[in-house]
Amino acid sequence: MVCRIEIIEKPQLNDPILIEGLPGIGFVANIAALHLIGELKATCFAEIASASFQDFAVTTESGGTRSPMNELYYYKRSDGGRDLIIWYGNTQALTTFGQYELCGKVLDLVQELGCRCVISIGGFKKEEVPAVPAIYCAATDEETMKEVMDLGTKVMMGHIFGIAGLLIGLGKLRRLKGFSLLVETLGMYPDANATRHGLSVLDKYLGLDVDLSKLDATADQTKKVLESFGLIKNVAEEKKKEEQQMRWFI
Amino acid sequence: MVCRIEIIEKPQLNDPILIEGLPGIGFVANIAALHLIGELKATCFAEIASASFQDFAVTTESGGTRSPMNELYYYKRSDGGRDLIIWYGNTQALTTFGQYELCGKVLDLVQELGCRCVISIGGFKKEEVPAVPAIYCAATDEETMKEVMDLGTKVMMGHIFGIAGLLIGLGKLRRLKGFSLLVETLGMYPDANATRHGLSVLDKYLGLDVDLSKLDATADQTKKVLESFGLIKNVAEEKKKEEQQMRWFI
Amino acid sequence: MVCRIEIIEKPQLNDPILIEGLPGIGFVANIAALHLIGELKATCFAEIASASFQDFAVTTESGGTRSPMNELYYYKRSDGGRDLIIWYGNTQALTTFGQYELCGKVLDLVQELGCRCVISIGGFKKEEVPAVPAIYCAATDEETMKEVMDLGTKVMMGHIFGIAGLLIGLGKLRRLKGFSLLVETLGMYPDANATRHGLSVLDKYLGLDVDLSKLDATADQTKKVLESFGLIKNVAEEKKKEEQQMRWFI
Amino acid sequence: MVCRIEIIEKPQLNDPILIEGLPGIGFVANIAALHLIGELKATCFAEIASASFQDFAVTTESGGTRSPMNELYYYKRSDGGRDLIIWYGNTQALTTFGQYELCGKVLDLVQELGCRCVISIGGFKKEEVPAVPAIYCAATDEETMKEVMDLGTKVMMGHIFGIAGLLIGLGKLRRLKGFSLLVETLGMYPDANATRHGLSVLDKYLGLDVDLSKLDATADQTKKVLESFGLIKNVAEEKKKEEQQMRWFI
Repeated sequence: MVCRIEIIEKPQLNDPILIEGLPGIGFVANIAALHLIGELKATCFAEIASASFQDFAVTTESGGTRSPMNELYYYKRSDGGRDLIIWYGNTQALTTFGQYELCGKVLDLVQELGCRCVISIGGFKKEEVPAVPAIYCAATDEETMKEVMDLGTKVMMGHIFGIAGLLIGLGKLRRLKGFSLLVETLGMYPDANATRHGLSVLDKYLGLDVDLSKLDATADQTKKVLESFGLIKNVAEEKKKEEQQMRWFI
Repeated sequence: MVCRIEIIEKPQLNDPILIEGLPGIGFVANIAALHLIGELKATCFAEIASASFQDFAVTTESGGTRSPMNELYYYKRSDGGRDLIIWYGNTQALTTFGQYELCGKVLDLVQELGCRCVISIGGFKKEEVPAVPAIYCAATDEETMKEVMDLGTKVMMGHIFGIAGLLIGLGKLRRLKGFSLLVETLGMYPDANATRHGLSVLDKYLGLDVDLSKLDATADQTKKVLESFGLIKNVAEEKKKEEQQMRWFI
Repeated sequence: MVCRIEIIEKPQLNDPILIEGLPGIGFVANIAALHLIGELKATCFAEIASASFQDFAVTTESGGTRSPMNELYYYKRSDGGRDLIIWYGNTQALTTFGQYELCGKVLDLVQELGCRCVISIGGFKKEEVPAVPAIYCAATDEETMKEVMDLGTKVMMGHIFGIAGLLIGLGKLRRLKGFSLLVETLGMYPDANATRHGLSVLDKYLGLDVDLSKLDATADQTKKVLESFGLIKNVAEEKKKEEQQMRWFI
Repeated sequence: MVCRIEIIEKPQLNDPILIEGLPGIGFVANIAALHLIGELKATCFAEIASASFQDFAVTTESGGTRSPMNELYYYKRSDGGRDLIIWYGNTQALTTFGQYELCGKVLDLVQELGCRCVISIGGFKKEEVPAVPAIYCAATDEETMKEVMDLGTKVMMGHIFGIAGLLIGLGKLRRLKGFSLLVETLGMYPDANATRHGLSVLDKYLGLDVDLSKLDATADQTKKVLESFGLIKNVAEEKKKEEQQMRWFI
């Protein structure tokens, strides 16, 4: 199957922008995406399972199940602005191959919906972070770079790992425009403060005026979800190795 | 080839339920499936080889060969109840990728045969297990959860590994209903007692009235098959092999 | 590409038997296949490259190149007997996945040519081997088993690793008949003696009357080819590890 | 996606020759390709991303992004000679599987453009290298070998790793002609001197008369690009990662 996308609805969208929000450093993108979905009351239109996600289910308190999954939400703007597609999930793919596959499949789908602009958010891991973290940016082209720099971001120096970097790179190859916002973070826990500052910049760029007052609650919710998938623990643990074979015997 | 399914027969089935019974913790599912196949005289209608199974053949006492293999059996009920599809095998896939592929292919086939409900069975590993082991449950939806709780099961807390968890998760993504039964077990050997208690609950759910008197013999048979494939030994051994880490966390 | 088969010719064959002869324990199959090809003047009709072979080329003394490769040869019998397809190569696939893929592709092709019987040869590693090594057998069915036992072979006990086991297993899944001949060998070098005894049995089974007088020369030739691919060294070395990434920097 | 080729233009070419120039030992091929592209003002007509490249983006000084990527350039000769296709990139694939896939896809495309001849360049790692490094050669056929030997090269002895070897091997399987030029190098840094001598031979073979005076600048440029992708560091580091062993030997 590699990557299975269950399409619930194919929305008609106005020149939509894709915002990537998978778990990563400081969980900045993940909290941001969940917050946007909640505040904008965005609608889930596609569910994605990948053979490169973990092969287990986790249970909820009432005996329900949650699986490693990505989802796409849309938000249609009433103010005539560009619509949004929000890419949320409780995991990235576990292998390089899976990351490319996942990113390629999502790009296929959103391009079909008319998307020509992609934004990824991420944490930029630092040993120390000031109360107001710096926000860095890298973009596919000079024009976009100038737009985002004008919002008070700095030039990103270094690698952008995982889906955040891949989305910009594969987007550029497909002649999409886009940028990556990287917020300073210690990176060890779901960082509400970093997310708040990152979302402020994104909010200005998109002209959304999203309420950030309940962001701490979103960070807590993100923490719970990711703990249930063992992702938070992974960050804290120094060397967590899983067995490749026979892992169903424990 | 990835996954090759050799279809022997495409049975006409009445709203069939899939019961997964591959080797796993305590081999509960594996013994249960083999016992159901034997007692119900179920018919094998498909054989599955996967490129993610081990690449060897094992020999039988008379010089015959057995290969790593999964099989699907059907049981047509004469009492007007829902028919059964039993998923039996001597191995799960060895990689996460292979697990998804295998589960996806089996779901493709059983959905083609009209299946809308999936059940997985598993062991829930505990350090100590009472004579009457507790049975835990997780389900795709509240209604199913209530039905299974009414049979005396408890709410499952934690991860459901391997095909048992994947089946519920991928089933839910495909809008199937289903649940997973997890029986307390030490998990180190084919656990006939755990299987007996698990099968009792399953039997009540399905209204089958299966004879469990020869279950110890089925457990012995399971042990022999799995020993020949080196699976029992694997359980005892401490050595673990590593899987892909969450490489997008730096 | 996974597996690329370059078909040179599609021969018309009379109920052909496939004989597998890739490098393995004691290189028994590899020497046997090369010897049959030479003595029978068999014709190469297909070349196979797999993405699961090693990614290098080796040079010959005159500056030519050899690549990891499998080949299929045919031999049309003038005595009215069943024709032969000989599967020769300088490597097996390096991963389980690749082994299945390779074996599946070869079976696809030979079945298209009418093949319904497969034979694999292998070494059975022992600490000590008598001057006349014992020959073991495992078969897909009782009738075939009886035929091969009548030639003086013993019942094989244990695992048949790699392509030798896979061919019998995947063949059986496809309803082919077949058997595996396993000759006692120390397994550390190309074993001409083990091959001679194995070929004698095969020769009797096929009624070929192949000249074995130059078998030592064939073993030497096999040794040279495999040394150039680093395979002999691998057997002797205790733990030869290669790097997964960036292996093109050395 | 495995391998995604973005074709910008399908040029009409006159019996073109493919020259491979990916990073490898001493970065000889990589510098040579970049230099040819610059001096000949070759035109990029295809961009290639592979799921076997690294999954990150690197940033430029101005906040732009660069991704792991391969590119194909063409150069149409006005002197009636055979046109050139130059295969440039900042990485090879990270896995054996990916290497085969990448090489297969490129061969598919260039064969479609009429290519029947492939040339790979590489470093031949030595402990000591004289001021005028020796240049070794291996070819698909005797005629080509003679042509290249006549330019002062020696017979290559040993393995040709990575894409350089694969291209010749897979090319030969497809009945293409070709050769590999291997220049002595210490292999630890982008070796402008080795590249100069290699390019001289290539230049003579192709009758190009390329200006080599700015080759040191090209080597510096290559160094910068590869450092940003962490490839130069990799060469210096001792740590090796293991690949699949010949697991069918027990």
